[in-house]
Amino acid sequence: MQKADMVLFDTDIHNEIADQRQLLPFLPEIWHKQWMQAGTGIGMPFFSPVGVLRRDAITESGGTPGSDPSIIVKEHLDLYGFRYGLLNWGRAIEMSIHPDPDYANAIVSAHNDFMETECLTTDSRFRGSIVINHSDPAAAATEIDRMAGRHGFLQAIMCSASRMPFGQRFYHPIYEAAERNGIPIAIHPGTEGRGISGAPTPSGYPTRYMEWHNILPTNYMTHVNSLVCEGVFEKFPKLKFICIEGGISWIPHLMWRMDKNYKGLRASAPWLKGLPSEYIREHFYFTTQPIEEPDNKRHLEYLIEMGGLEDKIMYASDYPHWDFDNPQAVMRAFSPAIRGKIMGENALRLYKVGT
Amino acid sequence: MQKADMVLFDTDIHNEIADQRQLLPFLPEIWHKQWMQAGTGIGMPFFSPVGVLRRDAITESGGTPGSDPSIIVKEHLDLYGFRYGLLNWGRAIEMSIHPDPDYANAIVSAHNDFMETECLTTDSRFRGSIVINHSDPAAAATEIDRMAGRHGFLQAIMCSASRMPFGQRFYHPIYEAAERNGIPIAIHPGTEGRGISGAPTPSGYPTRYMEWHNILPTNYMTHVNSLVCEGVFEKFPKLKFICIEGGISWIPHLMWRMDKNYKGLRASAPWLKGLPSEYIREHFYFTTQPIEEPDNKRHLEYLIEMGGLEDKIMYASDYPHWDFDNPQAVMRAFSPAIRGKIMGENALRLYKVGT
Repeated sequence: MQKADMVLFDTDIHNEIADQRQLLPFLPEIWHKQWMQAGTGIGMPFFSPVGVLRRDAITESGGTPGSDPSIIVKEHLDLYGFRYGLLNWGRAIEMSIHPDPDYANAIVSAHNDFMETECLTTDSRFRGSIVINHSDPAAAATEIDRMAGRHGFLQAIMCSASRMPFGQRFYHPIYEAAERNGIPIAIHPGTEGRGISGAPTPSGYPTRYMEWHNILPTNYMTHVNSLVCEGVFEKFPKLKFICIEGGISWIPHLMWRMDKNYKGLRASAPWLKGLPSEYIREHFYFTTQPIEEPDNKRHLEYLIEMGGLEDKIMYASDYPHWDFDNPQAVMRAFSPAIRGKIMGENALRLYKVGT
Repeated sequence: MQKADMVLFDTDIHNEIADQRQLLPFLPEIWHKQWMQAGTGIGMPFFSPVGVLRRDAITESGGTPGSDPSIIVKEHLDLYGFRYGLLNWGRAIEMSIHPDPDYANAIVSAHNDFMETECLTTDSRFRGSIVINHSDPAAAATEIDRMAGRHGFLQAIMCSASRMPFGQRFYHPIYEAAERNGIPIAIHPGTEGRGISGAPTPSGYPTRYMEWHNILPTNYMTHVNSLVCEGVFEKFPKLKFICIEGGISWIPHLMWRMDKNYKGLRASAPWLKGLPSEYIREHFYFTTQPIEEPDNKRHLEYLIEMGGLEDKIMYASDYPHWDFDNPQAVMRAFSPAIRGKIMGENALRLYKVGT
């Protein structure tokens, strides 16, 4: 199906626990009642007519898609020939927008322990993300220090919905911990407008799931812009971010607008030492899912050229979500010259793992 | 400076009253005290280090740039050879985000009367926009009915900051009135995060002017997305919108993402009869300012090709704002084949005015 020497690295697989009770051994007893009765407690007013999870990924016993690692192995890693599959959790990511930071901290820690013990051990191709609660940056930093370096953990992950843009100093303890531990930070969309985050657009709430989903990347623009403008990468020069599941076609737009404004307004950001686009290219990675599919394939190539992004894009499947991207289809969207980079090499280099 | 037969049409000039007292003859007495003491009353926490208005446009007597029509004529229309100049007001646009709709309605009406009497009469090249208060749609519709058809008024204009995305039914009386009167609706950014509008990003408030200004187009994505998804153009098939001052490079991104999602999620918008990108191309116009200036000029051409936008982009100067775009410079950014369209022909066709 692909060149024998092409490494396939899936940077976004959503695993799940099969049963709320599985988390109890890793969770302080004080939280057991709330976890069993309320779960994450984060509602979702926008209803997808096709569901959010792939129906064909429901387990034989009727369990949640992603909740049986052996199915991920057989129906995903084996089927497509992935060398690595990065497990990013599903619902646990949304704990950052829970109103109670103590509960959120306990739940993410329990998921991390469960990931180490019950998931990463099941197949040598699995890698994992440390899920953190960004609404309590000191606790998130402690969690990064606790988990980073344990076998198989490659990055920290947090949801992109938040009460403040990520460049603001409130979040800097997280970045200090990530840099100290030599791991990048991945952000993941889908929590916008939920929990304690604000309205998901500058003009309030969209009406339905499709409209809401269409503009999720605007929050990535918000965070990339903030992280660069606030000088985060002068303070933490080794820090890298991964924008998962936001596509790539908005990046040249943002780069040009930021560069143009910087030329006129740089007096307000004297800590920046170069163009905003240079910081973006240096410090951000982007995943393919959902990859843009223009009718004219050259348009995708133009975008990669415009953004200078061929070393910054990484394949992601989003398994087992409804908008899953088949790696063979994604591969064909890119020119043969850069397929290898996008399907695996860029991830191998970022995460410093061998082939 | 340009081909003798090329018509230059400036679709965004910001005029201003020179003195608060000029508005009093057009304003009911009940509002005189508030207007004289508080003006629009809309604050601006984001401070531009270069100011917002061109210093070279300050009048000889030290007056606000844009407040003397004879200076706009001499230093802008005459200097660059514009055939038409569309006056869009400056501060009056922000009345839609004032908490008191009665006050806002009175202030925009007074500006419209002032525009007719004191501005449009000063030069035959001037055209005007009817400023409306979108937070009171019934009143906005009445104002459109009152002003449309009066000599020189080509469109309604309202700020893009709002409490709800513009597709929602709350706003439909405005669209009904615009369609009834055969005029398009222009939206203008710069009020995001101010007055009664919400936070200007999905993650709260940015920190400084540059960061805030960099992501203003995300609110245009919000509104374009909402107007299409809500089926506004099935309800009002002749309605056209102009997105002023938001650039163009985000449009292909939004089109692709909306089209891709529509294929999977169209069950939630059964009123749509075609791809979202088709509605965008049919019903939206975009102005150049600030035009993207990639190092590689071909990239701008690629974008226009990707979006199918050569008939939808109109030149705008943004005079007398700090980020004014010189028409000669903008013209050179486009290939000779489409310059004529962008510098004037597209506007002549949209606004149905003769050469």
